[in-house]
Amino acid sequence: MERYDIAIIGTGPAGLSAAITAKIRNKNILLIGSKTLSPKVEKAHTIQNYLGMPEVSGAELQTAFTDHLADSQIEITEDKIHAIYAMGAYFMLQGSGANYEASSVILATGVSAGRLYEGEEQFLGRGVSYCATCDAALYKGKSAAIVGFSPKEEAEAEFMAEIADKVLYFPMYKDEVQFSEENTKDKIEVIREVPVSVEGSMKAERLVTRDNSYDVDGVFFLRESVSPAQLVPGLKMNGNHIEVTRNMATNIAGCFACGDIVGTPYQYIKSAGEGNVAALAAVSYLDQKKRAQK
Amino acid sequence: MERYDIAIIGTGPAGLSAAITAKIRNKNILLIGSKTLSPKVEKAHTIQNYLGMPEVSGAELQTAFTDHLADSQIEITEDKIHAIYAMGAYFMLQGSGANYEASSVILATGVSAGRLYEGEEQFLGRGVSYCATCDAALYKGKSAAIVGFSPKEEAEAEFMAEIADKVLYFPMYKDEVQFSEENTKDKIEVIREVPVSVEGSMKAERLVTRDNSYDVDGVFFLRESVSPAQLVPGLKMNGNHIEVTRNMATNIAGCFACGDIVGTPYQYIKSAGEGNVAALAAVSYLDQKKRAQK
Repeated sequence: MERYDIAIIGTGPAGLSAAITAKIRNKNILLIGSKTLSPKVEKAHTIQNYLGMPEVSGAELQTAFTDHLADSQIEITEDKIHAIYAMGAYFMLQGSGANYEASSVILATGVSAGRLYEGEEQFLGRGVSYCATCDAALYKGKSAAIVGFSPKEEAEAEFMAEIADKVLYFPMYKDEVQFSEENTKDKIEVIREVPVSVEGSMKAERLVTRDNSYDVDGVFFLRESVSPAQLVPGLKMNGNHIEVTRNMATNIAGCFACGDIVGTPYQYIKSAGEGNVAALAAVSYLDQKKRAQK
Repeated sequence: MERYDIAIIGTGPAGLSAAITAKIRNKNILLIGSKTLSPKVEKAHTIQNYLGMPEVSGAELQTAFTDHLADSQIEITEDKIHAIYAMGAYFMLQGSGANYEASSVILATGVSAGRLYEGEEQFLGRGVSYCATCDAALYKGKSAAIVGFSPKEEAEAEFMAEIADKVLYFPMYKDEVQFSEENTKDKIEVIREVPVSVEGSMKAERLVTRDNSYDVDGVFFLRESVSPAQLVPGLKMNGNHIEVTRNMATNIAGCFACGDIVGTPYQYIKSAGEGNVAALAAVSYLDQKKRAQK
């Protein structure tokens, strides 16, 4: 497997800034996220304090970012990372599409969508999962509840329904849900209720909503981003945020973080600045490692 | 005297970013520095990693910054600050042109040109000074050595020569020195030697160069920026840099710092990001102070 120098997770201003600087420093980088970049930036009406670009709209800023990536010949790998394991000499990244290896990691996934559900952390890995594609094989002849935070998770539900007997789909958005695959349509039930908790004994056994309780073999929470503590086992947090030094280093050697994920203020120029610092810190980490090996 | 909410010292990317964000938050700001902004940015050939502005030249970036200031209706006060005193409820800023008062201060003066000369700190305030204009009156009938780091300090030497009997001018740059004022010309001696130390007993008595020693009543070091520890008495340093929290707070309540002055990497986008954080931290400091007074 190809081992990248630096894997950068997230395509908001922090991740993009990190990628551009790491690339200039001739590192072999993997930039993972959405090719449409940050939905938060895209939807911003006017941004007044991104120094050098007065009164820029979110859409204009996105275009400028996309142009900068093209100019730097940086490609985005569209994938979602579910877990990152520190293996000592390198990191193993588990994605929906593939697995990856990198000598260092920069986390720039933004602030987590919200709080964890009751029982979510308790049953993680024991019936609770963040990747339907990864775990679908385990659900042959079984049932699964999928809590989807965006319409693109509908494809995940359909894939699960190809294998599982029954899929309960809980859309956490207002858009109309559209399941079109003829062979799985009847196996998916759309339920517009608000999930409250996961219950069980040794493993997850049911998803409880405000109104009902559903017996299932597994529960999937498909958010835009996985919370950092879930993403990287052992990562030191400070409340909702990853604890970092002024150098953007986390408590795990070789793992850096930047942008909204490390704390307020949630501002584009702050994120871009931190991405730059994280990239140079990762470069310096790689250099030191190389020298130590000689 | 008008008391500003926030005084921002420095017109590089850190200071400008701080000013723009503080202005958006409706603070009454004083932005002090050079109207030509940062000479370091101006002279940069191409900047590749200022996210959103690919392959921008230093001159183009300066123009973009100037446009952003104009768009935000922010004026630069051209002055050089020599000392900042924490008075408890506010800060007193001593400039060449005037004195100023502000409830909080953001230091963004960049990295200091170089190391202090031997004896410089020891005799500061006792024959060593950073402001010829401020102290000229004390040199009637006396002699002064002026170490100038840029051609614009020649005007300071001429002003000093109007009052003092003798001025020894040590240019620390290669440009030709041009003294044009007829009435002071003969009182100024240009010496192209490299200063090494200031010597004396109770007060500074001579400037020692590599080749000679010059008896004088006072020695002036006129650099682009005063070193931060000299600028704000009591400021906690970390080597050459000001020690700050992730929030850009220094050890002095109400005094924040950002940009190159707080440490590496010396990168424009990093400085701009930190300026934003410093401004919002200052805004929050002012809010808390206001609430405590109620």
